[in-house]
This record gives sequence, structure tokens and C-alpha cells, in this order.
Amino acid sequence: MIANLHQKLEDSYEQMVEWRRHFHQFPELSFQEVETPHKISEILTSFGIEVQTGVGGRGVVGTIRGGKPGKTVALRADFDALPLEDEKEVPYKSKVPGVMHACGHDGHTATLLAVAKVLSEMRAEICGNIVLIHQHAEEYYPGGAIQMIEDGCLEGVDAIFGTHLMTTLPLGVVGSRTGALSASVDGFEVTIQGKGGHGSAPHDTVDALIVATQIINQLQLVVSRRVDPLQPAVLTIGAFHAGEASNVIADKAVFKGTVRTFSPEVREQMEREIRFIVEGGCAVLHATADIQYIHSYPSIINHGQETELFRQVAGKVLGHDQVIEAPLLTGSEDFSYYLQHVPGMFFFTGAAMSDPLANFPHHHPRFDFDERAMLIAGKTLLSLVYHYLQEEEQILAD
Amino acid sequence: MIANLHQKLEDSYEQMVEWRRHFHQFPELSFQEVETPHKISEILTSFGIEVQTGVGGRGVVGTIRGGKPGKTVALRADFDALPLEDEKEVPYKSKVPGVMHACGHDGHTATLLAVAKVLSEMRAEICGNIVLIHQHAEEYYPGGAIQMIEDGCLEGVDAIFGTHLMTTLPLGVVGSRTGALSASVDGFEVTIQGKGGHGSAPHDTVDALIVATQIINQLQLVVSRRVDPLQPAVLTIGAFHAGEASNVIADKAVFKGTVRTFSPEVREQMEREIRFIVEGGCAVLHATADIQYIHSYPSIINHGQETELFRQVAGKVLGHDQVIEAPLLTGSEDFSYYLQHVPGMFFFTGAAMSDPLANFPHHHPRFDFDERAMLIAGKTLLSLVYHYLQEEEQILAD
Amino acid sequence: MIANLHQKLEDSYEQMVEWRRHFHQFPELSFQEVETPHKISEILTSFGIEVQTGVGGRGVVGTIRGGKPGKTVALRADFDALPLEDEKEVPYKSKVPGVMHACGHDGHTATLLAVAKVLSEMRAEICGNIVLIHQHAEEYYPGGAIQMIEDGCLEGVDAIFGTHLMTTLPLGVVGSRTGALSASVDGFEVTIQGKGGHGSAPHDTVDALIVATQIINQLQLVVSRRVDPLQPAVLTIGAFHAGEASNVIADKAVFKGTVRTFSPEVREQMEREIRFIVEGGCAVLHATADIQYIHSYPSIINHGQETELFRQVAGKVLGHDQVIEAPLLTGSEDFSYYLQHVPGMFFFTGAAMSDPLANFPHHHPRFDFDERAMLIAGKTLLSLVYHYLQEEEQILAD
Amino acid sequence: MIANLHQKLEDSYEQMVEWRRHFHQFPELSFQEVETPHKISEILTSFGIEVQTGVGGRGVVGTIRGGKPGKTVALRADFDALPLEDEKEVPYKSKVPGVMHACGHDGHTATLLAVAKVLSEMRAEICGNIVLIHQHAEEYYPGGAIQMIEDGCLEGVDAIFGTHLMTTLPLGVVGSRTGALSASVDGFEVTIQGKGGHGSAPHDTVDALIVATQIINQLQLVVSRRVDPLQPAVLTIGAFHAGEASNVIADKAVFKGTVRTFSPEVREQMEREIRFIVEGGCAVLHATADIQYIHSYPSIINHGQETELFRQVAGKVLGHDQVIEAPLLTGSEDFSYYLQHVPGMFFFTGAAMSDPLANFPHHHPRFDFDERAMLIAGKTLLSLVYHYLQEEEQILAD
Repeated sequence: MIANLHQKLEDSYEQMVEWRRHFHQFPELSFQEVETPHKISEILTSFGIEVQTGVGGRGVVGTIRGGKPGKTVALRADFDALPLEDEKEVPYKSKVPGVMHACGHDGHTATLLAVAKVLSEMRAEICGNIVLIHQHAEEYYPGGAIQMIEDGCLEGVDAIFGTHLMTTLPLGVVGSRTGALSASVDGFEVTIQGKGGHGSAPHDTVDALIVATQIINQLQLVVSRRVDPLQPAVLTIGAFHAGEASNVIADKAVFKGTVRTFSPEVREQMEREIRFIVEGGCAVLHATADIQYIHSYPSIINHGQETELFRQVAGKVLGHDQVIEAPLLTGSEDFSYYLQHVPGMFFFTGAAMSDPLANFPHHHPRFDFDERAMLIAGKTLLSLVYHYLQEEEQILAD
Repeated sequence: MIANLHQKLEDSYEQMVEWRRHFHQFPELSFQEVETPHKISEILTSFGIEVQTGVGGRGVVGTIRGGKPGKTVALRADFDALPLEDEKEVPYKSKVPGVMHACGHDGHTATLLAVAKVLSEMRAEICGNIVLIHQHAEEYYPGGAIQMIEDGCLEGVDAIFGTHLMTTLPLGVVGSRTGALSASVDGFEVTIQGKGGHGSAPHDTVDALIVATQIINQLQLVVSRRVDPLQPAVLTIGAFHAGEASNVIADKAVFKGTVRTFSPEVREQMEREIRFIVEGGCAVLHATADIQYIHSYPSIINHGQETELFRQVAGKVLGHDQVIEAPLLTGSEDFSYYLQHVPGMFFFTGAAMSDPLANFPHHHPRFDFDERAMLIAGKTLLSLVYHYLQEEEQILAD
Repeated sequence: MIANLHQKLEDSYEQMVEWRRHFHQFPELSFQEVETPHKISEILTSFGIEVQTGVGGRGVVGTIRGGKPGKTVALRADFDALPLEDEKEVPYKSKVPGVMHACGHDGHTATLLAVAKVLSEMRAEICGNIVLIHQHAEEYYPGGAIQMIEDGCLEGVDAIFGTHLMTTLPLGVVGSRTGALSASVDGFEVTIQGKGGHGSAPHDTVDALIVATQIINQLQLVVSRRVDPLQPAVLTIGAFHAGEASNVIADKAVFKGTVRTFSPEVREQMEREIRFIVEGGCAVLHATADIQYIHSYPSIINHGQETELFRQVAGKVLGHDQVIEAPLLTGSEDFSYYLQHVPGMFFFTGAAMSDPLANFPHHHPRFDFDERAMLIAGKTLLSLVYHYLQEEEQILAD
Repeated sequence: MIANLHQKLEDSYEQMVEWRRHFHQFPELSFQEVETPHKISEILTSFGIEVQTGVGGRGVVGTIRGGKPGKTVALRADFDALPLEDEKEVPYKSKVPGVMHACGHDGHTATLLAVAKVLSEMRAEICGNIVLIHQHAEEYYPGGAIQMIEDGCLEGVDAIFGTHLMTTLPLGVVGSRTGALSASVDGFEVTIQGKGGHGSAPHDTVDALIVATQIINQLQLVVSRRVDPLQPAVLTIGAFHAGEASNVIADKAVFKGTVRTFSPEVREQMEREIRFIVEGGCAVLHATADIQYIHSYPSIINHGQETELFRQVAGKVLGHDQVIEAPLLTGSEDFSYYLQHVPGMFFFTGAAMSDPLANFPHHHPRFDFDERAMLIAGKTLLSLVYHYLQEEEQILAD
């Protein structure tokens, strides 16, 4: 049966490309998606799939009910675009000024639509159900995932899978890892209030610039000494501003930065230690601090069993050589929220352009991907759905 | 004879006040003085004093030749004003928008004119000569002093004296000290060039913000460990700017500051150590630095013998209680250049307003001083001239 | 056949325990092993195995030639003990004062002997050869591995496998990971030479204590900013000593520490950056440094294919749930040298005592392990050998 | 009359030298003086001076009552020695092993005895009284001064004078300054308690070594930013000890140092800031601190009027060129306590050996001084007493 599913997907390749290029030409910004969910809904409906729109705001949820009883597995694809001017020279270039699919969400969406088509055609033979989560607003905090979950998209779901096309991985390769896969990227802005004065009289002042440099110096210890060295963590101060004149002691210093972590414990510890050092470091030098700490998405923490399933399944589909232990993603993804509610996993699908000169990083104005990656992503998702809905024992024997 | 000189000065008090208020109403900025030197020249000429104008640019030099042979002593007063709006409510308020005598140079000038008048009247009885140095542009580096010296104003001069009215000292008091009296205030601007990058990948960058904080941290050692602790020194970083975004590692950081010292050796050492720490600190962290180091006036270094003469003489004029060991001035004064060429000393003359609410610091838009301080300054200068032109033995016996 | 091999191993369990307890009672220190290799040699010879002694000093190498042609696979067990007093109360307690098998090498040796016995009995049916590497001196740098390799123990070997019993993992579990598994632990000692002097006159000195604190402060940046945050690295300064009297400025400061890394690139980068910061940091503050940098074993870098083989094979032997992604070992192991010459991998075998109160960390004077772990280690090694000597295709089909 | 006093002192020079050499040969340690006060008492009594012994422990106080009514002036000399082995080769070398007059207190004592002799001979003509304070234990905190004051040695005293022979100043010169003359030298010892652990797991520890380096780094700010830059202050950390092994994180770090200041305000501020930074710096990094702060003598703060008297009087005795503005003494002296109770001043008397190769710093095992300095010290003290007991007006007219 799995061969059958894959064959059907291959037969839909041209359709998939057409969908993808349509979305590519009409990108919509996070939380402003109107036509995209409308189009998704239309297509799913055309397959005879039950569709719910406006889920969690602008999300679309389709449900395929299998012909036999069984578990429920969800697949998720995000569909929002970025505020970038498309600088590629291709026929399917964005038609919306200043908005562009520069991260591959158009590909995710087309892939999931084709997967939905295949599964809906085979629904009679499927044990259990498939929930298709077309999510809005992945690019912009607080993201669409949390809203769709609150609106019930995971009700009855036993496991969830998702993928991201990656131009940093070669076509043909997929990768993931058990546990943390993506970072949590929190931000902060610290305002140190001292007491200004004349450059000749530091003793009558509280030199905010100096207080801030001391704190930034001490913040290095968070990564070098406080956090488990086996747990990756990055603390970057990106900006620092204090004072104007060379002979006036600054009364205020402002610095801001980001914190990237890969586990909830380290994430919490980093925030705690940063607050502690900033507040204590100010107190020691007679200043006060205001800290704005902005939380973003948590890390994707892949579940062990589902990730092992992915390894087995993807190994069969693509060859074991093509299934890699993915490097940690230092960016963040709101797929993480789904995994806080149900088991599942997220994987990367290699989508590098075959011409290295045409290959650009995500969020680049010339970003594009090899569309054949959608086939690989789709086949892997189909296999995951198929095997997940069987007993695990059966899989290995298959 | 000294009593006679003092009496004549007291008789000129009203004239002195009139002159001062005239200059106060028509202030002129440094290096832009036209009417002020013209007026000074006119007045000196009216006393039958030989006058040279345009000395070193805009300076005026008068010479009083005594009736008997002897040494030559110079007195200096500066006459430039500041780019401030006068906010006082007095009849003699500045008539020039945005320009104001907010440092008392009008008083210095009026005092020296009155002293000149008295001395010129008594010239027959004087042993030696008096050179009257009316200097332009004290407030603005490189200052008028160095130009007037290069133009020969100190030729034949054996010693020089000068004073500054100070609203931070009570009326009636004068003060000075042997050795360093004022600071040398140098400035610097450091640009650290690193290599920018994404906040998640510090290892691919040279984080200029961090390099700068390390250097600023280490610069604290210059004062705390490198300089002789008995030699006052202040190193202030007044401004620090690096980066804009919280998640982008800054490729450049700029900081600037001032260095105040009270001896040429410490001044040179500070510059040497700062350059060393900046350059070495960059090298250690793979960055490079551009350092703009701007030298300003050197410290006034009072000569011992002339300062002792001042103490004796001022003690007699005002009472020993009124002659204080002046605190170091953390600002700078280009009188220092004269003392690099001839012996002499500089002293402060207390000029605080009797109403504390009317007393403002120098360079304040409501700055004013008690005009009676001009009498005290003038009497002290007259006594210094008189005693200097006698043998020292005679003085103590006087 | 594999079932047969496992059965034979189970039949040898009592023998294995006896061997282990014998070695446990007569532990020998690294590079001082005499009786242990003699005993190993005797046992292997008794199985009709070709034995070479004195390999690389004190190592023993046995070779089992299979009845059919094929590849050559090596298995390695280390046999040295530690300079610790055995504080356990067991009948097989160490009989050598101050020497103890506190790391489980006795178990490794007994396991490999039993594996050798089983394989030698089945040699007729084996395709290829098995090299048994009984290695001396793993605990003491430079270790026995490098010497045995130089002496030819890997000649003709196609792949190597090894394991370490771990009381930090539960009995029944085995674990490993592709790529880095253990740390490289390098050490260093830095002597800062300044210029001493009286506590009142820092300007006449080069304060070595302060120079050292500055350098240690700046060394934090190596981990926090210079190393790839996805690459674990630990830099610990364990000791710092400078000065005696409170009012004398120290002319010398000594500090020492360790560097743990998990890749050759990061290892080299750490050494380079540490040297750079120490030397540059001294220069900036007018001191000089002597750096003793002591290299220890490199990281074990497991090869991908052999580790995948381990995952498959161990999953079949023990159940997939029992095969974990091992956490990185922050200690080091000289098995790493073998993997620099031939493909292979190293894994951990859970050996925790069932009574948690009886479970102690490695190198503890009361260390002991659950001897049944030897059976698990042995079965996994047997399966690895068996499957490695077949075609890979066959394995998955098995 | 003053000429008469000086002549009598010169006539006593040989006697003075004999006394000095006697004390030099029989030095006694602080708080252990027995023979010295006994000898002093004998000599004073032999001049018919009223003597009190055991004052404040081991001090000796003599009182000379003048023939005419007037004020009471005290003179102080200290008489304790140091725990050093005398390494000079002179006939009057110390006869007590390990004890030596290496600071000139023997000279102070001989000088005051000779001054007492002269004054007692002239007592009929003196207006007022002279109190001779022969003080024990200047070298060892808490010092003899405070005890003698508590025991009443200053009762009825209107002013006090004292001097210290200095081999750092040339023979013939005396020096002092208004306000602070000597440092206050406080000490401290800080013990940082963290939590030790293995070098590979900093996150499970509180690294006391790192906490201490951070605090020492931050303590630099006390001098560089917190204290008035015109107020000299030295903070030296003389010793730092933490940890033994390179791969074990230290649970404890100890550092100690000294704080030198020249005003009570700065002294208090330094202690406050140091405690604040140590305690706060520990808290920020999860450690705790124990601070032992040991106060020593306060600064000598010379009174203005008496110092001006010294300048005038010494100028007449030695020539104004020989009276210098003394550099601040970075050591401490318990003469400071007397000046907290009565007006007065302390001055230095140049006592350098004419052969520079024979000139050693104070507290050196080969320390010696030019004994003619005792004459200069004695004449200055005699003039101070004489002039102080007249009206000030009279002095200048003298």
C-alpha cells in the first residue's frame, strides 16, 4: 500500500508545483492571511475533506476519516510569508510588493495539500484518521500554533508530524534528532539608570556606562560557568548605547540581546541568571535596572518513539545514508507548541538548489528551493502516517 | 608705597566695574574677538602705555617701563566669552544673543586694566618693567596663550602671574598651590572594528561590542593600578555605542572619553597605557582599533618660589587665614603654557555672590560674580608685582 | 547462529564472573601490569588462540582466524587499575593495598575473554578474523592504546568495537552516539611573571595577581563567545595562587585548569585562544607568561556506519527501547586513538547496581558494578562481530 | 632667647648621640618595652623634670613647668623597635638578636631628651608648660598613642608637635603639609564560600575562584570610579588562594589586601564600597562571603594654623628653601590620634646618609640615619615650642 501512496504522490507532482507557485506569487504576511487559507480550504474541500476555517484566527483544519478504526495522526504545514522584496528572476516571482515566501512555507502548504489528496483517495483502506493542520503566522510571535491549539485543532490527535524544507541540506536528505531540535529565542532589553555628572567627578555620579559594561562582562559567566556545558546556549548582546559627550558621565545605558537555548530548564535558568546578574550587578554599583524580557517560541523537543519511527521509515523511503542526525537549529519554530500537547516530531527536508550559486539562505531576498524536495517531504509524511497507524512491530517487519 | 598702590586701586573701583560691565554686555567668542581687544588697546593707550595689538592673532600686550632698572614681570588676563545665552536679569546682561561672559574673563580684563592704570601712574618709582598680557581665546583649544608666546609676548619677562575669579570660593579668600594647580584634559575616541554576524553564531564573528566592554573594563586598571596613587588622574568614558538589533552581533563599537591629569609624566603615561590596552585588548580578541587622541592644555604647574611669594604677600594683604591651599582644578587653563617658559604662578580669587541663591557655577547661563573680588585680585597682583621687583629678603622684612 | 553465540556466552557466565573477581583481587597500576597480561595470555592460549604479548609494552593481542574468508574485526578491552584503596566489603575485594579496579576494566577484560572463548569455539563458521586487543594503561596518559597501535595491533583490521561498563546507566541499557562520544581533556598551567613591590606603590610594580584575574576574566569569553555554541566546551580554572602578605604586591601568579572539548577543531581552537589571551593579556599589562599546555587523549569520534550498525544490532539484542542516545562523556578514553586509524565505535553498557545505595560513581573507593552487565556487553559485542562480518544488507533482513 | 636654646642644643649634641646609640644597642619590641622607658625616666628625672611612668601601659610623660604663665604644648617621641635582625656593621649595632631600631625611634627619643634638657634649663624664662610624651608601641596596632591619651597624657595640652626622621629626605630639609600627611592603612581578608565540584560540571557548582576574580575585577572600580579622584586612595590585593587540582572546581577562595586613604571620609567610603562589592558580587554569583576588615591608625591630619606656624618657624631656622611641601606618606603613624584631640602638626626631618650607598629605606635591616638630623629636628621643635608659647603676632615680627 505504501508504494501505492508514493506513486500517487508522484503523479500529483505537477499539481503540487502549480499550487506552490500560486502561493509563491501571492504571499501574505503573518496574521494578515486571507486568500491563502481561502485557497487551501477550497482545495481540501474539492477532495471531499471536511474543512474548518478560521481555526485560532486564520488557520484551516481538514480531517480525513479512514475506512477502518484506529489512531488519529496530525500533519502540520504553515502558510505565512515574510516582509521582504522578492529579488529572484523567475516566472513565479512574488506579485506582492515587499512580501515574499522566503522561508518555504509555500512548499510546506503545497506538500500537505498533495499528501491530503493522496490520503483522501485512499481513505477507505486507512485505519484511523488524519488531521491536516494548515497554520497561519509561524513567522511572527506569538504565532498561529498556540491559537490553533487553544481553538481545539489537537483534539483527539494521538501524534503529530511536520517538516521544514531546508536549503542548507542537500536534496534527497532528511534529518532530525531526538529531543531538542530548534532553539528557543528569547530577547531582552536592559535599561540601567545611574546618576549622570561631570567627567571630572565620577564620585558624585553613578556611571551607568560602567555599570553596564560590568554587567555585560559578568553575563559571559552565564554561558561559561552557569549552564550545563553539554546544553548549548547562546547569549548575545547585540546593541549597547550610553552617553553622548566624551566628558559627561552617562546617567543611562541601554543594552539588548537574545538568548538561544534548547531546553526549557536551561531557558528558565538563563532568564533567572540574567535577571540576577543585571539586578545584583546594578545594586552593587548603586544603579537600578529595568529589564524587559520577551519570551518567544519554546524549543521543539522531538519525542523519542516518534523520532525513532521517523528514522526507520525515512531510512526505508530514502536509504539509511540519507537520514542524518540533524544539527540543532539555532532559530525557533512554533511547531514546538504542538509537541507540548501530543507526541510527535519535526524533521528537516533537504531542498538545496542543485546550482550552488542559486542557493540562498532562508529569509534571503533571493531564496528559492528545489521543488523536488516537496516529493521527498510528502513521501516521508505519507510513510509516517501509514506506519504510525499500524502497530510498531509490524513496521520493522514490513 | 604698597599702601599707596592699593589706595589708588580702590579709587579706581567704580571705573573697574564700569569696564567690566561694558565687556559683559559685549562678549565675543574665542578667536572672534574684535571689539574687546580694540577697547583694551584704547584704554591702555589712554594711560600712556606702549601697546602692541594683534599679538598671536588677537592678543594685546602693554608694557609699563619703570623709572628704575630691574626685572620684568608679566600679568595676564584673558578676555574671550562663551557660546551661552545669558539668562541673568541684570542691567549689564549680555547684548549679544548666544554669547556670554560666563567664566569671569570680563572681570579679569577689568582688573588688569585697573592694575595697569595704577602701575602706570606710579611708574617713576618702579624698579623694572611690567608686561600686561591681555589674551584672547582661552576657552577654545588650542587657545590664545601659545600663539601669543610664539609671537614673543614673553620676551624679556622674568616671571608671570595671573588669577581666575572663582565663584566656588568665598569673597575675601585667595588660594593656590605649589606644583600642579589645574588639570590637563585630553580626549579620545576609539573605534573598534570587529566582524559582524548573526546573534546565534558568535564563533563566526568578532563581537566588537564585547571587545569594547572588555577594554573599558581593563581601562579601569590605568587609574586603579598603573598610575601613582598620589597623582590624581581621572579617566571617564562618556559615550559608548555599538549595534542596533538585539540578534545581530555588532561589527563596530565606538567609545569616547576624557583623561584628566595633573603632571606631564602622568599625562603621557595615561595616553601610553590607554593606547596599549586598547590596541592589545583588540589584538587579543581578534579586532582592530582606531584611536583618535586629542591633546588639550597641559596642567598649570606653579613654580615653588613664586608661589611662596604669593603666600607671603597675600597673607599680608588679606590675612594669613584668607590664603588657602587651593583644591586642584579638574578643568584646564592655557596659562599653563606661560609657566613652561618663565617662572610664575596662578591663583584663584574667591568671587562667590553673597546671596547663595544667586551664586552659580562657571559656564552656567546665570553665572555672575561679586565685583568686589576684582579689588582683591587687583591688590594681590599689585603686591606681587611690587614685591617681586624687590629683593626677596626685603619682602620678609617688610 | 547468533542465538547460538549468545547461548554459549550465557553458559560461560560463571567463568566470566570468576575471571573478573580474580582480576579484581589482583589489580595492577597503569604501565606496571605484569600478572594481568600474563593471566590473559594464559587464558587465551588455553582456547587455542594465537597470542602475542608485550604488544606496545604490556598489551596482549589474540587473533581468532575464522574458517571462511572475510574481513577482520577488532575488539578491545583495557585491563589497568587505579591508585585507590578498595573500601568495599565483598569477598573479592582488592588484595593489593592502595590499588583497585574502580573503573570496571576487570569486567571489560573478563567480558572479552568470554567473548573470545565463544568465538574461538565457533571459529569454523566465521567469515573473517577477530583480533582481541587486551590493552594496558588506559588510565594514565599517554596510555597504552597509542603504543599498541604503533606496535601493529591494528594491522589488517577493518573495524574495531569496544565498550565501557557504566554504573551511571541502568542494567539492560546500552548507549552510544555518532560522532563525538567522549571529551578530550587537556590541562594547562600558567605562570604570570610581573614585578612585585609595596602595596602602597602599584605604579612601581606589575601586579601579577591583577594580571591573572584579568586573564581569567577574559578566558570566559573563549566559551561564551569564541567557540561554536553547538560544540560543547568546558574551560575550568581549578587553582589560583598569588602572593602571601596583604600589603605586598605579588610578583608571580600561577593558575591551572582543564579544557574539555569534543572535536579536534574546537580542541585546537581552545588551545589557540587560551594561549592568545594569556600572552596578549600579559603583554597589555606589562607582564609575561609561561604556559605549560598538556595534551591528553583526543575525543572518541564514533564512525557513522558502525554506530548505525550498533543501533540496529543492539536494538535486536536488547529491544530498541534499551538502546539510547548516550550523553556525551566529559571524561576521556584512549579508545579514541584506534578510531583515528580504522572505522569503528565505542558504546556504554549500563551496569548500575540494583540497590541504589550500593551504586557509586567510577573512581570511587566503593565502586562496584552489576556483573550481569558483562553478559549484555558480551552479547552486543558478539552480535556486532557477527553482523559486521556479514554484508550490511543481510543484517537488516536478519 | 631662641638662639640661646639652639646653642644649648648644639652643646648637647654628643650627649644626644650617646643616648641614641645606647637605645640603638638595646632595642625593645612594641608593648614589650621595659628598659627603654626606665632609662628615659631616669634621664628626665636627672633634669629635675616631673615624670610619670606606666602612662597608658609603658609610656613616660615628663612635664616642664615654665616660670611664667602660658599655654601648654606637648612634644611626642616614640621609642619602640622592630622585629628585624640588625645587619649594619657599626659599633652601636643592636645587641638584641632579631630586634632593631630600623625606623629611627631611637633618634626621636634622644632628640626629645635633649630638647627636654635645654627647656628644663631655661624653664624660668618660659611662658607656659611643656609636656614630653615618650610613647611606646608605635609600630604595632593598636599602638601606644591611644592608650596614653586614654590615660590622660593630653590633659591641659593646648597643642602638640612631633617629627619623624626620614632617610628619604636629604639632611637639612624638613617638610610637612596642611591636612592629611600620612595614610590610614586598613587591611581585609575575604573568604568566598562557593560549592566545589568536578571541573567538567561547572553548572553543579558555585565556582569560588571565578567569583573571587570577578569581585577583584570589580574592586578596581572603587579607586577608578567611586572615590573622589583628588583624594588619593590605594586598594591592593596582596594575596589570592583558591583550589589545588586543575580539574576540580574550588569551593573556597581567599584573598586579602590593604586600603590606604588620607581622609576619614574616603576611608569609610572605601570600606563601605568594598563590603558592598564583595557581598553583592557573591550574591550575584550564588556564593557567600566572610569579610574580616581590620582598621589600623587613621591618617595624620595636620591642623592649618600649627602647620603655618611650622612653615614660618622652620623657614627661619633652616631657610625657606629647606622647608618643603612633604609628599603624602603612604604608611601610617599613630600620632594621628593626638591630633584628633588637640591642635598640632607632625613633620618629617630629612636624615639621609651622605653616602647614598649607606642610605637604606626604613624597616630595612641595614637602616641607619645621619645623626646630625637630630639637631635639626631638635632646633625645629625648640622653635615651635618657643613661638607657640608667644602670641602669633610676635612670631612674624621676630
